[in-house]
Amino acid sequence: MKLMSFISQNRSTFGLVEGEYVYDLGRRLGKACPDLLSAIKGGWLNRLEALVENSQPDFHVDDVVFLPVIPNAPRIFCAGLNYLAHRVEGNRPDTEVPVIFLRLNESQVGHNRPLVCPAESDQFDFEGEIAIVIGKGGRRIPEDQAFEHVAGYSCYNDGSVRDWQLATNQWTPGKNFDATGGFGPWLVTTDELSTDRVLSLVTRLNGEEMQRTTTDMLTFSIPTLISFISTFTSLEPGDVIVTGTPGGVGLRRNPQVWMKEGDVVEVEVEGVGILKNTIIKETLRK
Amino acid sequence: MKLMSFISQNRSTFGLVEGEYVYDLGRRLGKACPDLLSAIKGGWLNRLEALVENSQPDFHVDDVVFLPVIPNAPRIFCAGLNYLAHRVEGNRPDTEVPVIFLRLNESQVGHNRPLVCPAESDQFDFEGEIAIVIGKGGRRIPEDQAFEHVAGYSCYNDGSVRDWQLATNQWTPGKNFDATGGFGPWLVTTDELSTDRVLSLVTRLNGEEMQRTTTDMLTFSIPTLISFISTFTSLEPGDVIVTGTPGGVGLRRNPQVWMKEGDVVEVEVEGVGILKNTIIKETLRK
Repeated sequence: MKLMSFISQNRSTFGLVEGEYVYDLGRRLGKACPDLLSAIKGGWLNRLEALVENSQPDFHVDDVVFLPVIPNAPRIFCAGLNYLAHRVEGNRPDTEVPVIFLRLNESQVGHNRPLVCPAESDQFDFEGEIAIVIGKGGRRIPEDQAFEHVAGYSCYNDGSVRDWQLATNQWTPGKNFDATGGFGPWLVTTDELSTDRVLSLVTRLNGEEMQRTTTDMLTFSIPTLISFISTFTSLEPGDVIVTGTPGGVGLRRNPQVWMKEGDVVEVEVEGVGILKNTIIKETLRK
Repeated sequence: MKLMSFISQNRSTFGLVEGEYVYDLGRRLGKACPDLLSAIKGGWLNRLEALVENSQPDFHVDDVVFLPVIPNAPRIFCAGLNYLAHRVEGNRPDTEVPVIFLRLNESQVGHNRPLVCPAESDQFDFEGEIAIVIGKGGRRIPEDQAFEHVAGYSCYNDGSVRDWQLATNQWTPGKNFDATGGFGPWLVTTDELSTDRVLSLVTRLNGEEMQRTTTDMLTFSIPTLISFISTFTSLEPGDVIVTGTPGGVGLRRNPQVWMKEGDVVEVEVEGVGILKNTIIKETLRK
């Protein structure tokens, strides 16, 4: 099942995607369940397909505005340096535990929405990643039970403003400029995409492949990330874990590659789909 | 004016504190404004005192359970290494811009509530700090207008699980164990505490002074922090900025000092009050 958050006619809602069409679930469920976060928290996920049976879809996907998969995620945990090739290209030391930082909802846009290179920097870089969404919360989740807590998968572009990320030892500012990350196009739930499958992850800039890996190359696996993060905080339904980017980022290329106005960046995750965003350069009025 | 968030009779609400008594504002305002975040967002702050005029207070402060000042803050931005003495004791290099990391609401407790030293560590450290709460949002706020965006001040204990903080170069895990930070007891609004006043900040552990500074010693001032953070993200009403800790943390003492079961830690900010918390050591059932 594919679930997406979107805006149609100035109304924010969520829906079930079949082929090129969307069933508006927010309209069908009303105030009881107005958004995807409510659906996950309220345990609605396994009742959604029955809701649209024998009914007509509401929209063509091209006629709605994609929002980040969960626009109001409780928390967004990101793993850094979680593929060997990216760790090596940055000359970063090994660590015994995952590197974790946080993104804010405001730093994200949905599929097909512009990513904004801020006025303050020209070092806007891509980072293709796989995101998972937590379906069932928990604290100190054992690795062998971790996949039971996953609602599904999505694509993520952990867009990074490099000079602001690396100005101090904490990456927060460069990872949290408004509208610099992409999250979409939709959530593919684990009934459709089995958790034991090795997935490929590819990033393309203007059609040219920049990053490619498979999930078996993750330094810290998805179960390890879930177990680690849930050691310090109780994971909640709707929490997002972004699992890290492989080698090939623009910062570490020679010459360096930065995303600029008009560029098109795609993150493709096998079994999920393609997250596509165009870059716009912000200009400030004097 | 002093404003606090609290629980009474299993109901979460907020109130105005006068002396030892609390006026329940959530009860008076109802669904229109159930919590302090709503009051700030809804522009209620300058109408609250009129609401309690000629009425009786509802509770003695000892009879309510203190919540973090804003239990549902949109975001909590923390400045690291923002006093020279703390930077020097940790052998940290100068930076030209503030070090910023994020805490999560779940990592906080209110005044008089226990701070939890997690089962996974014995390196639980205090960091006394001054927190400000944003009253009026904005992007790219100039320093000379920054104080207009401040609703008020509070005390903060940026409790840190040091081995988890320093296990990698990103501090997120050790700064975000559930119930490790203190935020309270209340918000003192800028009508009562003028923004041009130099404030003293003192941390005590079991009555012994461990940290002392004044706000004129901040490396990056409150206006600079507001201007910097609002460059990468639009500040929102209710956002919290925790301004950094001075020298004297337990990690950098010889011998090192860690907070343990039964310890009492206090953070006192001049003109605000004393945030007091007792430490409990978490034990896990097998």
